[in-house]
Amino acid sequence: MLPRLFLAASIVLLGFVGFSQARTTAKHAPVYTRDGQLRLPADYREWVFLSSGFDMSYNQDMAMDHRMFDNVFVNPEAWKVFQSTGRWPDKTVLVLELRRAEEKGSINQKGSFQTAEPMSIEIHVKDESRFKGKWAFFGFAPADSTAKMIPLTQDCYSCHAEHGAVDTTFVQFYPTLKTIATQKGTLEAGYQKNGQSH
Amino acid sequence: MLPRLFLAASIVLLGFVGFSQARTTAKHAPVYTRDGQLRLPADYREWVFLSSGFDMSYNQDMAMDHRMFDNVFVNPEAWKVFQSTGRWPDKTVLVLELRRAEEKGSINQKGSFQTAEPMSIEIHVKDESRFKGKWAFFGFAPADSTAKMIPLTQDCYSCHAEHGAVDTTFVQFYPTLKTIATQKGTLEAGYQKNGQSH
Repeated sequence: MLPRLFLAASIVLLGFVGFSQARTTAKHAPVYTRDGQLRLPADYREWVFLSSGFDMSYNQDMAMDHRMFDNVFVNPEAWKVFQSTGRWPDKTVLVLELRRAEEKGSINQKGSFQTAEPMSIEIHVKDESRFKGKWAFFGFAPADSTAKMIPLTQDCYSCHAEHGAVDTTFVQFYPTLKTIATQKGTLEAGYQKNGQSH
Repeated sequence: MLPRLFLAASIVLLGFVGFSQARTTAKHAPVYTRDGQLRLPADYREWVFLSSGFDMSYNQDMAMDHRMFDNVFVNPEAWKVFQSTGRWPDKTVLVLELRRAEEKGSINQKGSFQTAEPMSIEIHVKDESRFKGKWAFFGFAPADSTAKMIPLTQDCYSCHAEHGAVDTTFVQFYPTLKTIATQKGTLEAGYQKNGQSH
Protein backbone atom coordinates (compact mmCIF):
# COMPACT_ATOMS: atom_id res chain seq x y z
CA MET A 1 0.00 0.00 0.00
CA LEU A 2 1.37 3.34 -1.04
CA PRO A 3 -0.80 6.04 0.46
CA ARG A 4 1.41 9.01 -0.19
CA LEU A 5 3.71 8.55 -3.11
CA PHE A 6 5.00 11.81 -4.37
CA LEU A 7 7.36 14.29 -5.74
CA ALA A 8 10.59 14.22 -7.62
CA ALA A 9 13.96 15.91 -8.17
CA SER A 10 16.58 15.92 -10.92
CA ILE A 11 20.04 16.35 -12.30
CA VAL A 12 21.46 18.91 -14.59
CA LEU A 13 22.66 16.65 -17.37
CA LEU A 14 20.32 17.42 -20.23
CA GLY A 15 19.18 20.85 -19.17
CA PHE A 16 22.62 22.34 -19.08
CA VAL A 17 24.44 21.10 -22.13
CA GLY A 18 27.75 22.84 -22.28
CA PHE A 19 27.94 23.29 -18.53
CA SER A 20 30.55 20.62 -18.08
CA GLN A 21 30.57 20.86 -14.30
CA ALA A 22 27.03 19.53 -14.35
CA ARG A 23 28.13 16.34 -16.03
CA THR A 24 30.72 15.56 -13.45
CA THR A 25 28.45 16.29 -10.49
CA ALA A 26 25.47 14.38 -11.81
CA LYS A 27 26.33 11.50 -9.52
CA HIS A 28 22.90 11.07 -7.98
CA ALA A 29 21.05 10.31 -11.20
CA PRO A 30 18.59 7.41 -11.11
CA VAL A 31 20.12 3.99 -11.81
CA TYR A 32 18.10 1.10 -13.25
CA THR A 33 18.57 -2.63 -13.55
CA ARG A 34 18.52 -4.31 -16.96
CA ASP A 35 14.86 -5.16 -16.51
CA GLY A 36 13.93 -1.58 -15.74
CA GLN A 37 13.77 -1.62 -11.96
CA LEU A 38 15.02 1.40 -10.04
CA ARG A 39 17.92 0.89 -7.66
CA LEU A 40 17.51 2.36 -4.18
CA PRO A 41 20.15 5.11 -3.81
CA ALA A 42 22.47 3.92 -1.04
CA ASP A 43 23.25 7.42 0.22
CA TYR A 44 19.86 9.11 0.10
CA ARG A 45 20.10 9.98 3.81
CA GLU A 46 22.94 12.33 2.85
CA TRP A 47 20.81 14.11 0.24
CA VAL A 48 18.96 17.32 0.97
CA PHE A 49 16.10 16.99 3.44
CA LEU A 50 12.90 18.73 2.33
CA SER A 51 10.49 18.09 5.18
CA SER A 52 8.83 15.52 7.36
CA GLY A 53 5.18 14.88 8.06
CA PHE A 54 3.42 13.04 10.85
CA ASP A 55 0.50 10.66 10.27
CA MET A 56 -0.38 12.51 7.08
CA SER A 57 -3.24 11.14 5.02
CA TYR A 58 -5.14 12.44 2.03
CA ASN A 59 -8.08 10.23 2.95
CA GLN A 60 -10.27 11.18 5.88
CA ASP A 61 -11.31 7.55 6.38
CA MET A 62 -7.84 6.07 6.48
CA ALA A 63 -7.12 4.24 9.73
CA MET A 64 -3.71 2.96 10.87
CA ASP A 65 -2.74 0.76 13.80
CA HIS A 66 0.44 2.79 14.31
CA ARG A 67 1.74 6.32 14.02
CA MET A 68 4.20 7.23 11.36
CA PHE A 69 6.64 9.88 10.14
CA ASP A 70 7.55 10.55 6.54
CA ASN A 71 10.92 12.10 5.67
CA VAL A 72 11.49 13.47 2.18
CA PHE A 73 14.92 13.84 0.58
CA VAL A 74 15.98 15.09 -2.85
CA ASN A 75 19.22 14.60 -4.76
CA PRO A 76 21.48 17.64 -4.29
CA GLU A 77 21.70 18.42 -8.01
CA ALA A 78 17.93 18.83 -8.26
CA TRP A 79 17.86 20.92 -5.07
CA LYS A 80 20.37 23.34 -6.58
CA VAL A 81 18.33 23.76 -9.74
CA PHE A 82 15.07 24.18 -7.83
CA GLN A 83 16.63 26.86 -5.66
CA SER A 84 17.51 28.97 -8.68
CA THR A 85 14.53 28.22 -10.94
CA GLY A 86 11.63 26.90 -8.85
CA ARG A 87 11.46 23.93 -11.24
CA TRP A 88 12.59 20.32 -11.16
CA PRO A 89 15.24 19.39 -13.71
CA ASP A 90 15.41 16.09 -15.54
CA LYS A 91 16.85 13.30 -13.34
CA THR A 92 15.22 14.63 -10.20
CA VAL A 93 14.91 11.90 -7.55
CA LEU A 94 12.63 12.40 -4.55
CA VAL A 95 12.82 9.81 -1.78
CA LEU A 96 10.00 9.41 0.74
CA GLU A 97 11.05 7.39 3.77
CA LEU A 98 8.33 6.17 6.11
CA ARG A 99 9.28 5.40 9.71
CA ARG A 100 7.28 4.12 12.62
CA ALA A 101 6.79 6.64 15.43
CA GLU A 102 7.21 5.90 19.14
CA GLU A 103 6.00 7.98 22.06
CA LYS A 104 7.67 6.42 25.08
CA GLY A 105 11.41 6.01 25.13
CA SER A 106 14.37 7.42 27.03
CA ILE A 107 13.27 10.67 28.66
CA ASN A 108 10.55 11.54 26.17
CA GLN A 109 7.23 12.09 27.91
CA LYS A 110 5.03 13.51 25.19
CA GLY A 111 4.99 13.60 21.44
CA SER A 112 6.73 11.23 19.04
CA PHE A 113 10.16 10.37 17.75
CA GLN A 114 11.36 8.19 14.89
CA THR A 115 12.53 4.59 15.19
CA ALA A 116 15.39 2.69 13.63
CA GLU A 117 13.88 0.90 10.67
CA PRO A 118 12.03 2.41 7.74
CA MET A 119 8.62 0.84 7.10
CA SER A 120 8.89 1.51 3.39
CA ILE A 121 10.51 3.84 0.91
CA GLU A 122 8.84 5.42 -2.08
CA ILE A 123 10.65 7.20 -4.89
CA HIS A 124 9.38 9.65 -7.48
CA VAL A 125 11.74 10.07 -10.44
CA LYS A 126 11.76 12.54 -13.29
CA ASP A 127 13.38 10.91 -16.29
CA GLU A 128 12.02 12.59 -19.35
CA SER A 129 13.35 10.30 -22.04
CA ARG A 130 12.39 7.17 -20.12
CA PHE A 131 8.89 7.69 -18.78
CA LYS A 132 5.72 8.66 -20.52
CA GLY A 133 4.55 11.69 -18.57
CA LYS A 134 8.21 12.30 -17.57
CA TRP A 135 7.76 11.04 -13.99
CA ALA A 136 7.43 7.59 -12.41
CA PHE A 137 6.85 6.15 -8.93
CA PHE A 138 8.59 3.17 -7.34
CA GLY A 139 7.80 1.49 -4.03
CA PHE A 140 10.41 -0.34 -1.91
CA ALA A 141 9.66 -2.70 0.96
CA PRO A 142 12.18 -2.42 3.85
CA ALA A 143 14.67 -4.99 2.52
CA ASP A 144 14.36 -4.14 -1.16
CA SER A 145 17.30 -2.70 -3.04
CA THR A 146 15.38 -2.47 -6.32
CA ALA A 147 11.73 -1.86 -7.20
CA LYS A 148 9.51 -2.12 -10.23
CA MET A 149 7.76 0.94 -11.54
CA ILE A 150 4.25 1.43 -10.18
CA PRO A 151 1.78 1.16 -13.07
CA LEU A 152 0.46 4.41 -14.50
CA THR A 153 -3.06 3.30 -13.64
CA GLN A 154 -2.42 3.74 -9.91
CA ASP A 155 -3.98 6.67 -8.07
CA CYS A 156 -0.65 8.24 -7.14
CA TYR A 157 -0.18 9.49 -10.69
CA SER A 158 -3.59 11.12 -11.08
CA CYS A 159 -3.49 12.56 -7.54
CA HIS A 160 -0.08 14.13 -8.05
CA ALA A 161 -1.08 15.45 -11.46
CA GLU A 162 -4.21 17.02 -10.05
CA HIS A 163 -2.94 18.37 -6.73
CA GLY A 164 0.84 18.83 -7.00
CA ALA A 165 1.79 22.49 -6.54
CA VAL A 166 4.79 22.21 -8.91
CA ASP A 167 5.16 19.74 -11.78
CA THR A 168 3.16 16.89 -10.14
CA THR A 169 5.07 17.22 -6.86
CA PHE A 170 3.67 18.21 -3.46
CA VAL A 171 5.84 21.27 -2.97
CA GLN A 172 3.00 22.69 -0.88
CA PHE A 173 4.20 20.44 1.96
CA TYR A 174 7.88 21.39 1.69
CA PRO A 175 8.25 24.66 3.53
CA THR A 176 11.46 25.95 1.98
CA LEU A 177 10.50 24.92 -1.55
CA LYS A 178 7.02 26.38 -1.40
CA THR A 179 8.57 29.76 -0.63
CA ILE A 180 10.94 29.46 -3.60
CA ALA A 181 8.20 28.37 -6.02
CA THR A 182 6.05 31.27 -4.91
CA GLN A 183 8.91 33.72 -5.50
CA LYS A 184 9.80 32.22 -8.88
CA GLY A 185 6.18 32.06 -10.00
CA THR A 186 6.27 28.35 -10.75
CA LEU A 187 3.24 27.20 -8.78
CA GLU A 188 0.78 25.38 -11.06
CA ALA A 189 -2.10 27.53 -12.27
CA GLY A 190 -4.60 24.92 -11.12
CA TYR A 191 -3.11 24.85 -7.66
CA GLN A 192 -3.26 28.63 -7.35
CA LYS A 193 -6.73 28.87 -8.86
CA ASN A 194 -8.15 26.79 -6.08
CA GLY A 195 -6.83 29.09 -3.41
CA GLN A 196 -4.04 26.61 -2.69
CA SER A 197 -6.68 24.53 -0.99
CA HIS A 198 -6.61 21.44 -3.17
CA MET B 1 12.11 29.26 26.11
CA LEU B 2 14.32 26.37 25.07
CA PRO B 3 12.55 23.17 25.96
CA ARG B 4 14.65 20.77 23.99
CA LEU B 5 18.14 21.93 23.34
CA PHE B 6 20.36 19.12 22.36
CA LEU B 7 23.06 17.30 20.60
CA ALA B 8 26.07 18.17 18.60
CA ALA B 9 28.30 17.29 15.62
CA SER B 10 31.82 18.24 14.51
CA ILE B 11 34.58 18.77 12.04
CA VAL B 12 37.75 16.89 11.49
CA LEU B 13 40.23 19.69 11.96
CA LEU B 14 41.92 18.89 15.24
CA GLY B 15 41.17 15.20 15.41
CA PHE B 16 42.88 14.33 12.18
CA VAL B 17 46.12 16.25 12.09
CA GLY B 18 48.02 15.13 9.04
CA PHE B 19 44.89 14.26 7.10
CA SER B 20 45.09 17.23 4.80
CA GLN B 21 41.82 16.52 3.06
CA ALA B 22 40.10 17.18 6.35
CA ARG B 23 41.48 20.69 6.52
CA THR B 24 40.16 21.61 3.13
CA THR B 25 36.69 20.17 3.75
CA ALA B 26 36.25 21.63 7.24
CA LYS B 27 34.09 24.37 5.84
CA HIS B 28 31.17 23.95 8.24
CA ALA B 29 33.07 24.71 11.43
CA PRO B 30 31.36 27.03 13.92
CA VAL B 31 31.96 30.74 13.31
CA TYR B 32 31.79 33.32 16.10
CA THR B 33 31.52 37.09 16.29
CA ARG B 34 34.18 39.12 18.09
CA ASP B 35 32.06 39.17 21.21
CA GLY B 36 31.70 35.41 21.22
CA GLN B 37 28.28 34.96 19.67
CA LEU B 38 27.72 32.03 17.34
CA ARG B 39 26.73 32.81 13.75
CA LEU B 40 23.78 30.87 12.36
CA PRO B 41 25.13 28.67 9.52
CA ALA B 42 23.41 29.93 6.37
CA ASP B 43 23.35 26.55 4.67
CA TYR B 44 22.35 24.25 7.51
CA ARG B 45 19.33 23.00 5.51
CA GLU B 46 21.87 21.37 3.16
CA TRP B 47 23.61 19.57 5.98
CA VAL B 48 22.82 15.96 6.90
CA PHE B 49 19.37 15.43 8.35
CA LEU B 50 19.33 13.24 11.46
CA SER B 51 15.66 13.02 12.40
CA SER B 52 12.53 14.93 13.19
CA GLY B 53 10.23 14.75 16.18
CA PHE B 54 6.65 15.83 16.70
CA ASP B 55 5.45 17.63 19.82
CA MET B 56 8.25 16.04 21.83
CA SER B 57 8.62 17.06 25.45
CA TYR B 58 10.69 15.78 28.33
CA ASN B 59 8.21 17.24 30.79
CA GLN B 60 4.87 15.53 31.29
CA ASP B 61 3.27 18.77 32.40
CA MET B 62 4.35 20.89 29.48
CA ALA B 63 1.42 22.42 27.60
CA MET B 64 1.60 24.22 24.25
CA ASP B 65 -1.01 26.19 22.33
CA HIS B 66 0.28 24.79 19.05
CA ARG B 67 1.79 21.65 17.58
CA MET B 68 5.37 21.58 16.48
CA PHE B 69 8.01 19.64 14.56
CA ASP B 70 11.71 19.61 15.30
CA ASN B 71 14.23 18.88 12.53
CA VAL B 72 17.82 18.08 13.43
CA PHE B 73 20.76 18.60 11.07
CA VAL B 74 24.49 18.01 11.54
CA ASN B 75 27.44 19.37 9.60
CA PRO B 76 28.60 16.81 7.01
CA GLU B 77 32.13 16.54 8.40
CA ALA B 78 30.83 15.44 11.79
CA TRP B 79 28.40 13.00 10.16
CA LYS B 80 31.28 11.32 8.32
CA VAL B 81 33.29 10.91 11.50
CA PHE B 82 30.31 9.61 13.47
CA GLN B 83 29.59 7.05 10.80
CA SER B 84 33.04 5.55 11.10
CA THR B 85 33.64 5.96 14.84
CA GLY B 86 30.29 6.41 16.62
CA ARG B 87 31.74 9.55 18.23
CA TRP B 88 31.43 13.28 17.64
CA PRO B 89 34.63 15.04 16.57
CA ASP B 90 35.66 18.50 17.65
CA LYS B 91 33.76 21.23 15.73
CA THR B 92 30.56 19.23 15.59
CA VAL B 93 27.55 21.49 14.99
CA LEU B 94 24.03 20.18 15.60
CA VAL B 95 21.15 22.40 14.50
CA LEU B 96 17.65 21.92 15.89
CA GLU B 97 15.01 23.73 13.85
CA LEU B 98 11.54 24.09 15.36
CA ARG B 99 8.61 24.58 12.98
CA ARG B 100 4.94 25.06 13.58
CA ALA B 101 2.74 22.16 12.43
CA GLU B 102 -0.50 22.51 10.48
CA GLU B 103 -3.17 19.89 9.97
CA LYS B 104 -5.45 21.34 7.33
CA GLY B 105 -3.99 22.49 4.05
CA SER B 106 -4.09 21.46 0.42
CA ILE B 107 -5.37 17.89 0.23
CA ASN B 108 -4.15 16.81 3.65
CA GLN B 109 -6.98 15.40 5.74
CA LYS B 110 -5.25 13.92 8.74
CA GLY B 111 -1.92 14.30 10.46
CA SER B 112 0.46 17.25 10.30
CA PHE B 113 2.88 18.92 7.93
CA GLN B 114 5.49 21.64 8.45
CA THR B 115 5.01 25.31 7.73
CA ALA B 116 7.22 27.92 6.12
CA GLU B 117 8.82 29.74 9.02
CA PRO B 118 10.92 28.27 11.80
CA MET B 119 9.74 29.20 15.29
CA SER B 120 13.26 29.05 16.65
CA ILE B 121 16.61 27.42 16.06
CA GLU B 122 18.85 25.92 18.69
CA ILE B 123 22.45 24.88 18.15
CA HIS B 124 24.69 22.57 20.12
CA VAL B 125 28.39 23.00 19.33
CA LYS B 126 31.40 20.95 20.29
CA ASP B 127 34.42 23.23 20.42
CA GLU B 128 36.88 21.69 22.81
CA SER B 129 39.35 24.51 23.13
CA ARG B 130 36.64 27.14 23.50
CA PHE B 131 34.07 25.75 25.91
CA LYS B 132 34.46 24.38 29.38
CA GLY B 133 32.83 20.98 29.16
CA LYS B 134 33.62 20.99 25.41
CA TRP B 135 30.02 21.69 24.35
CA ALA B 136 27.80 24.78 24.35
CA PHE B 137 24.19 25.65 23.46
CA PHE B 138 22.95 28.70 21.56
CA GLY B 139 19.33 29.76 20.98
CA PHE B 140 18.22 31.80 17.94
CA ALA B 141 14.90 33.59 17.58
CA PRO B 142 13.48 33.48 14.01
CA ALA B 143 15.20 36.63 12.73
CA ASP B 144 18.48 36.19 14.57
CA SER B 145 21.69 35.61 12.65
CA THR B 146 23.81 35.41 15.80
CA ALA B 147 23.17 34.19 19.35
CA LYS B 148 24.83 34.37 22.72
CA MET B 149 25.86 31.20 24.49
CA ILE B 150 23.26 29.87 26.88
CA PRO B 151 24.72 29.98 30.42
CA LEU B 152 26.06 26.73 31.83
CA THR B 153 23.59 27.00 34.69
CA GLN B 154 20.65 26.25 32.40
CA ASP B 155 18.93 22.87 32.56
CA CYS B 156 19.83 21.90 29.00
CA TYR B 157 23.44 21.20 30.05
CA SER B 158 22.65 19.00 33.03
CA CYS B 159 19.86 17.17 31.17
CA HIS B 160 22.08 16.40 28.20
CA ALA B 161 24.93 15.33 30.46
CA GLU B 162 22.68 13.01 32.40
CA HIS B 163 20.56 11.55 29.60
CA GLY B 164 22.48 11.85 26.34
CA ALA B 165 23.21 8.45 24.83
CA VAL B 166 26.52 9.60 23.29
CA ASP B 167 28.71 12.44 24.56
CA THR B 168 25.85 14.60 25.95
CA THR B 169 23.82 14.27 22.74
CA PHE B 170 20.43 12.59 22.32
CA VAL B 171 21.52 10.00 19.80
CA GLN B 172 18.74 7.79 21.18
CA PHE B 173 16.30 9.87 19.12
CA TYR B 174 18.29 9.74 15.87
CA PRO B 175 17.47 6.38 14.30
CA THR B 176 20.47 5.97 12.01
CA LEU B 177 22.98 7.22 14.58
CA LYS B 178 21.66 5.06 17.40
CA THR B 179 22.32 1.99 15.26
CA ILE B 180 25.88 3.12 14.56
CA ALA B 181 26.64 3.95 18.21
CA THR B 182 25.32 0.55 19.25
CA GLN B 183 27.53 -1.19 16.69
CA LYS B 184 30.60 0.87 17.61
CA GLY B 185 30.04 0.45 21.34
CA THR B 186 29.99 4.17 22.05
CA LEU B 187 26.73 4.44 23.99
CA GLU B 188 27.35 6.00 27.39
CA ALA B 189 27.63 3.48 30.25
CA GLY B 190 25.01 5.38 32.24
CA TYR B 191 22.58 5.31 29.38
CA GLN B 192 23.00 1.57 28.90
CA LYS B 193 22.90 0.81 32.62
CA ASN B 194 19.43 2.21 32.88
CA GLY B 195 18.11 -0.12 30.21
CA GLN B 196 18.18 2.78 27.78
CA SER B 197 15.15 4.10 29.58
CA HIS B 198 16.50 7.36 30.89
